[in-house]
Formats: sequence, structure tokens, C-alpha cells
Amino acid sequence: MAIIQAAILGFGTVGQGIYQILNERKVQLKQSLGLDIEVKAILIRDLAKNRIATPGVLVTDSFQEIEAIPGIQVVFEAIVGEEPAFDYLSRAIQKGCHVITANKVMFSKYGLQLEEQAKVKGVHIGYEATTAAGVPIIKTLKNLLQVNQVHKIQGILNGTSNYMLTQMRIQQCLFLDALQEAKLLGYAEADPYNDISGQDAFRKLMILSTLAFGKQPEWQDVEVEGITNITLEEVQNASSRGMRFKQIAEISQEVDGSLHAFVRLKLVGQEHPLYAIEGVDNAISLDTNYIGTLTLTGPGAGKFPTASVMVEDYADIIRKHTQFLVTL
Amino acid sequence: MAIIQAAILGFGTVGQGIYQILNERKVQLKQSLGLDIEVKAILIRDLAKNRIATPGVLVTDSFQEIEAIPGIQVVFEAIVGEEPAFDYLSRAIQKGCHVITANKVMFSKYGLQLEEQAKVKGVHIGYEATTAAGVPIIKTLKNLLQVNQVHKIQGILNGTSNYMLTQMRIQQCLFLDALQEAKLLGYAEADPYNDISGQDAFRKLMILSTLAFGKQPEWQDVEVEGITNITLEEVQNASSRGMRFKQIAEISQEVDGSLHAFVRLKLVGQEHPLYAIEGVDNAISLDTNYIGTLTLTGPGAGKFPTASVMVEDYADIIRKHTQFLVTL
Repeated sequence: MAIIQAAILGFGTVGQGIYQILNERKVQLKQSLGLDIEVKAILIRDLAKNRIATPGVLVTDSFQEIEAIPGIQVVFEAIVGEEPAFDYLSRAIQKGCHVITANKVMFSKYGLQLEEQAKVKGVHIGYEATTAAGVPIIKTLKNLLQVNQVHKIQGILNGTSNYMLTQMRIQQCLFLDALQEAKLLGYAEADPYNDISGQDAFRKLMILSTLAFGKQPEWQDVEVEGITNITLEEVQNASSRGMRFKQIAEISQEVDGSLHAFVRLKLVGQEHPLYAIEGVDNAISLDTNYIGTLTLTGPGAGKFPTASVMVEDYADIIRKHTQFLVTL
Repeated sequence: MAIIQAAILGFGTVGQGIYQILNERKVQLKQSLGLDIEVKAILIRDLAKNRIATPGVLVTDSFQEIEAIPGIQVVFEAIVGEEPAFDYLSRAIQKGCHVITANKVMFSKYGLQLEEQAKVKGVHIGYEATTAAGVPIIKTLKNLLQVNQVHKIQGILNGTSNYMLTQMRIQQCLFLDALQEAKLLGYAEADPYNDISGQDAFRKLMILSTLAFGKQPEWQDVEVEGITNITLEEVQNASSRGMRFKQIAEISQEVDGSLHAFVRLKLVGQEHPLYAIEGVDNAISLDTNYIGTLTLTGPGAGKFPTASVMVEDYADIIRKHTQFLVTL
């Protein structure tokens, strides 16, 4: 039986999740795809750091070393930030690898460029994990767009912010206490700027924009509001009126084709479709011409939700590439 | 350019919706699939009935006549009831046609059998429209199952019942008035038995069972409760306590592999994930091992939501069949 050889770039929470799921689901993946997978190499930043055991796998801090391994066909990427992730994925694509990424910061900026490179080389890019983690919004949107037109996308796209707003309301705690708790639970990064500034939600919204509308608005034209100015008093006032603060990311296309987008802290009532989305959950509503409004809700962060959709991307890509031509 | 030849069996609301969408989206489908589609024949029951114009299409009440047309590759089916739908689709598959169905009553019973026939003939079956209309639960579940295991499925699967329960609460109207309104709006059939008895939700639950667990529970072991016994007084009592009645269909797999399923009228509070699902919307929550809980919400009935996912099924099937083999 043929074996797919893979590399994992970045071995933090998500990278380790990929490795674990590939091992746990080895038999099922082999059965359903007719192909085995073997992780040949893992790229890390700090060789001294403790991590799960990966017997027989080259663990290195040199991308060049991984690049030099002949026969790698799939690259999973779970690095943070634009560079060197973009450089690595470009080079992987040039070598004819399929790539699967969870990197929203990189992909919101370089997604179209990578897609073009991939097209030229006849390989695929999986990026379900870049947006709303375990919620399969990318696949759903791709499927819908075969028939439907999407007018508007509205969502809660940052789990950390939503968790903090939920905690402030339910636990009556201060902003900084909610942030501290989010860090302890691993929802917020050591540097939580991207989450609480709205930048994380903004990047995900731009990825959805490219997919739904084939383009993005000018970034400087998009109003991006974080949750940093919210006080416990404001949250309590809202609660007493049956309202909730939600950080809502929205993009819509006008009749002239132009795009209007924002990430904004909104006060919403019980009738609002995103009112009930609590904790680290994300939700995305799509307004379409034939289907109407479709909403997906699920965990917007976390090791296994994120890693799981990356392994799904892998299965999809392999399946596509092993389809036989059937003459119609 | 090659042309796909299609037939539509059943030309009621959904059948006409398919025809309209195929025409409206002709250019886009051609662009994305590289193939044109032409509806060659439509099967109807009553030749005298008024319907939309279909220039150049054979409109007939004889399936034999359609069967005799050489070169039909895709059959859309939007008939109600087990027979003759099953017979027609079996025969279409035997002739090497891909089939796409919206018929939950037929497919809940004969789905596995049709899938086996299709496998032998190397053709595909699309059945997204059988369950929750515009909500892409079948595709989402298929994708998930590549990596995840599903433990429990819980949903509101009948739009008519949910619409009636919503109306009784909001408009404070009697059961029969809510039913009358559902009929006027085209949500309920002239004979609403399947909707209000819970049978419609039950059939959809069985389709999800086959997909998620590879089998169904014994039908006679499944408790199926309709909404027919509910009174306005009960609805009002629930409302006054902040609760709502919801018809909930649920199936779960025990550790020993056995299945436990029911369709039941439940009183739920605001913390319940299906509390906020109103009107004709359907919602389905999937409990999975890696992703956690994923919920999809959208229109559970209607001409264009249903027809749209059938045309999506068509696009998927054609795309699968025109993939070239790429040696790995």
C-alpha cells in the first residue's frame, strides 16, 4: 500500500493535536482513503522544549532540512504569524506538496497568492482551520457558492473575546480578571492583542471575504473595534435590560459590487441570531439567495477542534487526488 | 462542450424549483463544471395541471417514456412516498444514471439498498434534500465522519411542527388555527399527518442514523410523539415559566454500539441549544469526539432551499466524476 509522507510545521497545541489525531485515526483513514500516512518530519522553534514523544520522526528547527527530504507530499502548518509561514508554504507548494494551514494571519494576507501558486503546481490548499476552528464554514461556503450567491456574512469569530464577554456577564468579573481566566484556560495567547483588539476576527472575516466575494475590501477602510474599552458596569447595565454585548464581524456586498465590512462591539437583544452564542463558541450566519439564512455554531478554538478539521482537509485532498477519471 | 442530460421526476414545488435554478444558474454551473446541463424530460402525474412553461422538454406521465430516452445521465427525484419513487430510482441507477432525491419517506427505508446498487453501477446518489431541506447536514456529517466519531444527534427536523408550536406561543392561537395557517403558507401538506405525527422527523432521523452509525434502530423500538395533543393552555403555561415546547428528534449510540432514538415533545428552557429555533427553521446538533458540539440552523422547508441543495448535489457529483487521476 502506498504511503503519504507528511511534515508538520509548528508543534504547539495544534501541531501536536494533528499528530495525535493522525495516530489515533490511522486505521480509519487508511480504510477510507486506501492510503497510509506517515509523519516524516516536524519543524519546531525551540529544540529544548518538552513535547509529546514522536518516535521515528525527524524533529528539527531547520526548514531546509525538511525541504531536503525527498517524497514529502503533504505539509501541515500551524505556525503563528505571516513569516516565515508564508515563505515555507510557498516553497512547499513549489516542491509539489499539498498544504494545510491553520494560520489566519498569514492566509488572510497571502491566501490568494498561495492559491495561484497551488493552481500552477496542481496541488491543493486546505484552510478550514483558519476560520472558526471546528466550525466547517469554509467547506460549507464553498459548497453553497456552487449554486447560491451570498449577500452577507455575520459572525462571532473570536472565541477568546466571546468567552471574556460571557464571563464578565455571568461571573460579574472585571475585564482584566476575565482576560486572566482566558489565559489560564489556554484560550488567550500570552500576548492577547490579536484577540481582544478585534484583529483576529478581522483576519478571519477577510478570509471569508475572499472566498465569498473573490476579493477583500481595502483593509484600512474596515472599522475594527476590540473589546478593550468595555467595563463591567456597561455589561451589567446591558444585562439588566436583557441585552448582551457581542463582538460582531460582518461583511456585505452592495448592489454595485462594493464590500462593506466591520468588526464592532454590538449590544444585541434576544431576537438577534448571535445573542445565544456563549463562551468560546463561534457562530457564522450566511445570507444567501436560494437557501435563505444558514447559521453554523461550534467551538471557535481548541486543540482538537482545530486539528480535526485539518485532518479532514487532508482526507478531502487525498480523496480528490485519487479519483479516477470517468468518461461522462 | 459536452452536455449533461437530465430528467426531473415529480414537478410540484420542489421539481419546479430545480428547473428554475438550473436555468437561472446555467452560466455559472457551466463555468464552474465545464459542462452544460439540459433537462430533457419531466415526469408529472396529472397532464392537465397548470405549471411553469418548459419549452423543448418532454413532459410526460410515463416513466417508461423517460427511461427510453438514450443518454440521460442525471435523474432528479422530487416525488412523495415510497413507491413508485424507489422503483424509478432503482431503474435509473440500473441504466447508469446518477440520482438526486428529496424523498425522505422513500430514502429512509431504501437508502442503503439504493447506495449498494449505485456502488455496483459506479454512480452517485445525492440526498442532501431529504433531511432539513436547506441545511447541509448530510454533507457536513459525511465530512466530519472522515475524522470524528459522532455520539449523539439531536435536532428539530420538522419545520411545520416547529412553525405551529411557535405560532401557538406567539399568536396565542389554537392548534387547529396554527395548522390552518401552516397549510395556507404551504408549509403543511393537504394531508399533514406525517408532519404533525412526528413521522416526518422520524424518517429524517433514520436517514441521519444510517449515515452516522451505518445502521438504524428497529423502527418499532423508536418512540415517536407528534404535536397533536398539545393545547394552547399548555403552551401558555410553559411560556409563563420561560419554557418552550419543542419537538426534538434524538439518536445516540451507547457504548455497546446499540442505538437509542426518539421523537418527543419536550419542554425546554433558555439554556437548551434548540430553545431559540423558531418558525420553519430546522436545527441539528452533532456531538463529536474531536470537534465537540456543532450546530447547524436554517430553513427546514421551502421550494428554493430544497431545490438549491439538490442542484448542489448535482454539481458535487459532476465534479467528482470529472476529476482526473493524479498519480501520488
